[in-house]
Amino acid sequence: MKNEERLVKKITQKSKDFSKWYVEIIKKAEMADYAPIKGMMVIRPYGFAVWENLQNLLDLRIKETGHSNAYFPLFIPESLLEKEAEHLEGFSPEVAWVTHGGKEELEERLAVRPTSEAIIGNMYSKWIKSYRDLPVLINQWANIVRWEKVTRPFLRTTEFLWQEGHTVHETAEEAQKETMMILELYKEFAESELAIPVISGIKTEREKFAGAEATYCVEALMADGKALQMGTSHFLGQHFSKVFNIRFEDRNQKLQYGWQTSWGVSTRLIGAVVMAHGDDSGLKLPPRIAPIQVVIVPISGGDWQKTVLPVATRIKDELKQAGIRVKLDHREEFTPGWKFANWEMRGVPLRIEVGPRDIKNNQAIAVRRDTGDKTPVALDELKEKVRATLADIQKSLLKAAFKYQQDNSYEVDNFEEFKSVLENQRGLIKTFWCGASACEDRIKNETMGTIRAVLLDKDKSGKANGKCILCGKETDKLVYFARAY
Amino acid sequence: MKNEERLVKKITQKSKDFSKWYVEIIKKAEMADYAPIKGMMVIRPYGFAVWENLQNLLDLRIKETGHSNAYFPLFIPESLLEKEAEHLEGFSPEVAWVTHGGKEELEERLAVRPTSEAIIGNMYSKWIKSYRDLPVLINQWANIVRWEKVTRPFLRTTEFLWQEGHTVHETAEEAQKETMMILELYKEFAESELAIPVISGIKTEREKFAGAEATYCVEALMADGKALQMGTSHFLGQHFSKVFNIRFEDRNQKLQYGWQTSWGVSTRLIGAVVMAHGDDSGLKLPPRIAPIQVVIVPISGGDWQKTVLPVATRIKDELKQAGIRVKLDHREEFTPGWKFANWEMRGVPLRIEVGPRDIKNNQAIAVRRDTGDKTPVALDELKEKVRATLADIQKSLLKAAFKYQQDNSYEVDNFEEFKSVLENQRGLIKTFWCGASACEDRIKNETMGTIRAVLLDKDKSGKANGKCILCGKETDKLVYFARAY
Repeated sequence: MKNEERLVKKITQKSKDFSKWYVEIIKKAEMADYAPIKGMMVIRPYGFAVWENLQNLLDLRIKETGHSNAYFPLFIPESLLEKEAEHLEGFSPEVAWVTHGGKEELEERLAVRPTSEAIIGNMYSKWIKSYRDLPVLINQWANIVRWEKVTRPFLRTTEFLWQEGHTVHETAEEAQKETMMILELYKEFAESELAIPVISGIKTEREKFAGAEATYCVEALMADGKALQMGTSHFLGQHFSKVFNIRFEDRNQKLQYGWQTSWGVSTRLIGAVVMAHGDDSGLKLPPRIAPIQVVIVPISGGDWQKTVLPVATRIKDELKQAGIRVKLDHREEFTPGWKFANWEMRGVPLRIEVGPRDIKNNQAIAVRRDTGDKTPVALDELKEKVRATLADIQKSLLKAAFKYQQDNSYEVDNFEEFKSVLENQRGLIKTFWCGASACEDRIKNETMGTIRAVLLDKDKSGKANGKCILCGKETDKLVYFARAY
Repeated sequence: MKNEERLVKKITQKSKDFSKWYVEIIKKAEMADYAPIKGMMVIRPYGFAVWENLQNLLDLRIKETGHSNAYFPLFIPESLLEKEAEHLEGFSPEVAWVTHGGKEELEERLAVRPTSEAIIGNMYSKWIKSYRDLPVLINQWANIVRWEKVTRPFLRTTEFLWQEGHTVHETAEEAQKETMMILELYKEFAESELAIPVISGIKTEREKFAGAEATYCVEALMADGKALQMGTSHFLGQHFSKVFNIRFEDRNQKLQYGWQTSWGVSTRLIGAVVMAHGDDSGLKLPPRIAPIQVVIVPISGGDWQKTVLPVATRIKDELKQAGIRVKLDHREEFTPGWKFANWEMRGVPLRIEVGPRDIKNNQAIAVRRDTGDKTPVALDELKEKVRATLADIQKSLLKAAFKYQQDNSYEVDNFEEFKSVLENQRGLIKTFWCGASACEDRIKNETMGTIRAVLLDKDKSGKANGKCILCGKETDKLVYFARAY
């Protein structure tokens, strides 16, 4: 058995055992590794480079929409976290508590932030005095700790990295507008950069953020038919401003409580990228976030170091100068075949092969990771062709993911069919729900399906009313059900 | 009293009470604020923007020298931290301990990372098998917690942000070379970007990093005559690789322990910038790291919104397009005078004033924050002049800081004079020291002066030997003494 085969053969097939495939790919591609602390992981350089690309692209959007970054403390005194009762109740089972500093026991326990509404609310109450101080539009990139029982790399870990936006506005309308603007921003970001199509909507009472008035979300369908929450945007109303006393003098010299929002996405998005695009040969990274967009593999043999390598190096320099993230793999201890398999596993969007015969023909061979297509490209057209191909791969990945989503979306109005779809095909089910938590709970217990999102009016495309999938009551709530991560 | 005066008058004079001035400036310029947790601060958007600029400029250098970023867990199990005895002893008084996850008490306490050698060493032992895996060149941007007794914003806080590089090499020579390369990189970075001249050298046994074989440092002299450690680069030898079992098969198929380095700089650098350049009117930010490089203040009066504002806006757009970080302050509720004082306090390097008379003359007035110089500039030359002036301000700040350092450096060979300088002038004293911890301790007790760095041979410029400032013993150790932060 050849090296390259051995490398690939060791990967569990995606269709056979999705969970096992997922973890193997992440470890073999050196995206992440398990840490010696329960539920924690190390993000290795290759995985972290994906995060850095993703972070830069999102940070740009966050700043372009008027927000600034800041940094708030990692620790939140227990008394602060207790102020908003619903918030505390939601998070307290997941909090890691610091009880000692050095040799001394602390007078008050400190929560390692499970989210930052409380500590930020406390600061905002000091900073905000007048309507002139509003809106406050702050974002934070930070690490978060939640004591999770069941964990999986990137998708659910005791510690993760995220961004959390926290804004304060003069009116409910402005805060609502911000909430929706961010929801759209997340949607556009997921589709443009991660090549993952998402559905969006509002969460039910059961599923909303602890302390929010309303939680909006973007969700995507993964390759195993389960839905993944990709990001949330919360309209907090005045819940936190009332408990943290965030008040301002309005335009009529009256004291008012501020209207707030908060919103976030996390390193979970990396897990989404792995699951949405990967296949039996490994990762498929969208070019926009791939740490290496193009890998050049010189075909060894003969005196390739004198003939092929200089051409390969020239190609590398040319692509690098054009702003393309390129790597030349000229290691001698591996065969070209091994390298092909290795870089396919790591999801590099485009491979360029150059051998002695190609050089004679003044060409190179471009091989797409997404389709496997091999195309000879004239060397003097390479830069333009590479750029165009990368753009095309980005588009194709989104198109394929969108097709998968469409093929696995169902409209169902009969509970037996509903159960059967969730049990056999999985996927997204669009149906009506009466709005009662009792129905929601029973459906969850019987089918493991949860309401991922209640469609917003603008997305209902004419469907005004229908009957609840469980109780049959007339309702205007059109929802997406799925089994979820 | 006018608004603008009131703003400035409220600032304590730098020469009267340096400590008070420092904290006031940081709060008034909205760089940072105290958090409701002992010793912790919030880095506000203006301060965080300085950090982001500084981080981008340093990250570029770290990557250009072949390092990649990664992310390791926040928590370190107590048993891992205990493995290197010296390391544990050095850090255990400063560790914040997590003892509970949710409602459950943990079986083993978790340290909130005070530095990451232990957790990273543990992972490296899994990843490194062969000399082919070396060097490992990884950096991490992360938050760090040390339970400090006395804290001050940016300079010493219970939580801070930093980067920590952790590398593994085949040989002692390579690790030593890396240690020195990073030391030079920090030096160049401090001088080029922060406009702060530094001295460098090696730490004494008393002052070195707990667990290192040798600690190299860059130190700068602050405006109150005290030294501040700006960054450290540690040659770790095989201390950690032996306890964490980081072994590799060498080129002769023999198992060897890896040779390691670690190195870091932190948000403390922001404090250094404040102290090194600021004056009685507030901050003076070096243009390379200033969040706002140019502020445009339209002179109000008459129908300025129809006449002056369009010109000011055009200038803003032109400068922005040229890649300059520019802000147009067209707020109506403040007078130009108030704005001048406000942006001076925030340390914006260059102010551009435009009034009706300037427009008639087709010019604007450029006012430098560092010198106060006012220069009329023709509008069609503005972009080039602004660019040149910003470069000149950057150079001038470094020059002024260097002059201050020179003016406050002393060469002393008599202990009475030594005591008098440290008591009265402060500053840096270059002198000889015998190498004995006893002398080092006695000097510290009597003068509050510590050895900031033992000069490297290459920096000794011919001075081979001299007598210890305290005991008079002949020695080749030329050192810098100072009182320090």
